[in-house]
Amino acid sequence: MPDRKIQIGVIGAGSCTEKQADAAFRVGREIARRDAVLVCGGLGGVMEAACRGAKDAGGITVGLLPTSRKGDANPYVDIIVVTNMGHARNAIIAHSSDVLIAVGGEYGTLSEIALSLKIGKPVISLENRWDIKDVITVPGPENAVETAFRFLQQ
Amino acid sequence: MPDRKIQIGVIGAGSCTEKQADAAFRVGREIARRDAVLVCGGLGGVMEAACRGAKDAGGITVGLLPTSRKGDANPYVDIIVVTNMGHARNAIIAHSSDVLIAVGGEYGTLSEIALSLKIGKPVISLENRWDIKDVITVPGPENAVETAFRFLQQ
Amino acid sequence: MPDRKIQIGVIGAGSCTEKQADAAFRVGREIARRDAVLVCGGLGGVMEAACRGAKDAGGITVGLLPTSRKGDANPYVDIIVVTNMGHARNAIIAHSSDVLIAVGGEYGTLSEIALSLKIGKPVISLENRWDIKDVITVPGPENAVETAFRFLQQ
Amino acid sequence: MPDRKIQIGVIGAGSCTEKQADAAFRVGREIARRDAVLVCGGLGGVMEAACRGAKDAGGITVGLLPTSRKGDANPYVDIIVVTNMGHARNAIIAHSSDVLIAVGGEYGTLSEIALSLKIGKPVISLENRWDIKDVITVPGPENAVETAFRFLQQ
Repeated sequence: MPDRKIQIGVIGAGSCTEKQADAAFRVGREIARRDAVLVCGGLGGVMEAACRGAKDAGGITVGLLPTSRKGDANPYVDIIVVTNMGHARNAIIAHSSDVLIAVGGEYGTLSEIALSLKIGKPVISLENRWDIKDVITVPGPENAVETAFRFLQQ
Repeated sequence: MPDRKIQIGVIGAGSCTEKQADAAFRVGREIARRDAVLVCGGLGGVMEAACRGAKDAGGITVGLLPTSRKGDANPYVDIIVVTNMGHARNAIIAHSSDVLIAVGGEYGTLSEIALSLKIGKPVISLENRWDIKDVITVPGPENAVETAFRFLQQ
Repeated sequence: MPDRKIQIGVIGAGSCTEKQADAAFRVGREIARRDAVLVCGGLGGVMEAACRGAKDAGGITVGLLPTSRKGDANPYVDIIVVTNMGHARNAIIAHSSDVLIAVGGEYGTLSEIALSLKIGKPVISLENRWDIKDVITVPGPENAVETAFRFLQQ
Repeated sequence: MPDRKIQIGVIGAGSCTEKQADAAFRVGREIARRDAVLVCGGLGGVMEAACRGAKDAGGITVGLLPTSRKGDANPYVDIIVVTNMGHARNAIIAHSSDVLIAVGGEYGTLSEIALSLKIGKPVISLENRWDIKDVITVPGPENAVETAFRFLQQ
């Protein structure tokens, strides 16, 4: 059997605060340090910061773009998947991730969280602004990744 | 210019309480009475009850199935769109509806609500269990459809 | 059991010759005369001519748009499904049609023909420019629809 | 600007002859030797042989599965993208590849070839069984990859 890397989704908005970018960077870096692959939507904001963190620690990043052009990916995406499907690509992110970590986010992120929970994927968040029962809230970025791995070992 | 019918999405879970089914039936019936097309996910529960209501009033129903077989549609769907895309078809329901009405629902419905708000479609609900700012809560089924039409006239 | 209408896909390019438009019109009209629903990609050219033919005979037309705006549908589409998925919507047309009729077409149509054959749907064409073994070639528009119905009765 | 790897799609059927598997292996190996990423549908047959070739030369492989489970990927896929979209994922393979190489194939592959040509991607093939004008036919596996790179340098 192949000894495959774990794939962790990082979800959040395409524009974000400096504090959220810092959290996303640290989430991405911790994912790479633990030798998992970072999966995201490939654009800016939280997605870009997380990819930058993963590359900072020598990791691999995958960006599932909603648009039709590879050039829309942020500079820290290694593997570019061009879906050309708009928000329908959120379902592909949910299916492709073993576990997901949300950093901030607006309605796009909420749809991603809901889809992930619908198909039985654990969702970890640094905050829980919509008060969704099954979202696991954690205090910090490194803790989010640690919690993700703990779930996968169960 | 074509004088096209308004398309109203009705979203909710594939299994539901009798009270929700009654509300969905009345929503569907009112949509048909106002000569709009009912768009839904094509399965059971809220979707079936809404379609049944629409057919009761002589309306037209469209079901966007997540699966690959026409036979999975409930008996009250006229036009069957077979997406074979699982929950990714929720994005198509959001895009195809001029306005959406939620009846109850679980995480699948939450993802649909979030996607709809993300792309700027009004979402009306008989309850607002996740306390989402932009969801418009109304007291009853007929009122939901009336509110939907009011939004479209703006 | 519901007595559902047959759904017949008409596929072809978004711009076409006058002769192809005439053939598509007659295909659409014959589909409507036989009380089937016309499913297509919703745009111009062959799709628009077929929808015009169906409406001429009082039929129902469904357009599965590749884009994100209802306004992109041709004026003869009744039910607009907004997929926002580009050419990936071709798979939805194939799945949603009981049988497909091709009128002319370029690479988009070829992909549609191949997908349809892949999932076991009969494909009928007025010409067979790519010499594909399983495509059924017929001499005229009305004959195409007649052949489609013959297949469905088997 | 990021110095991104080229992404080359390898398309072909999920079951194939030994000769086709050998050709696919050599295509995959040559892709990896030239430091490009191999993109494919993630399943068996031509896809598995190409991935095995790429891993033999230390390359990176991406599998875009039509199904909903990571476990459906062949053992030589590094990055698993779970689309859960059936043949609609063919459009994502076309969009995500800078150039595509076909090895044998049936109707699924034909749909992939047609979609790729439709969106302007070069398609190279070791044979041209459907006699499609814009497919570039080459005599051998290594030559296919060499031709792919020549196209990208233009």
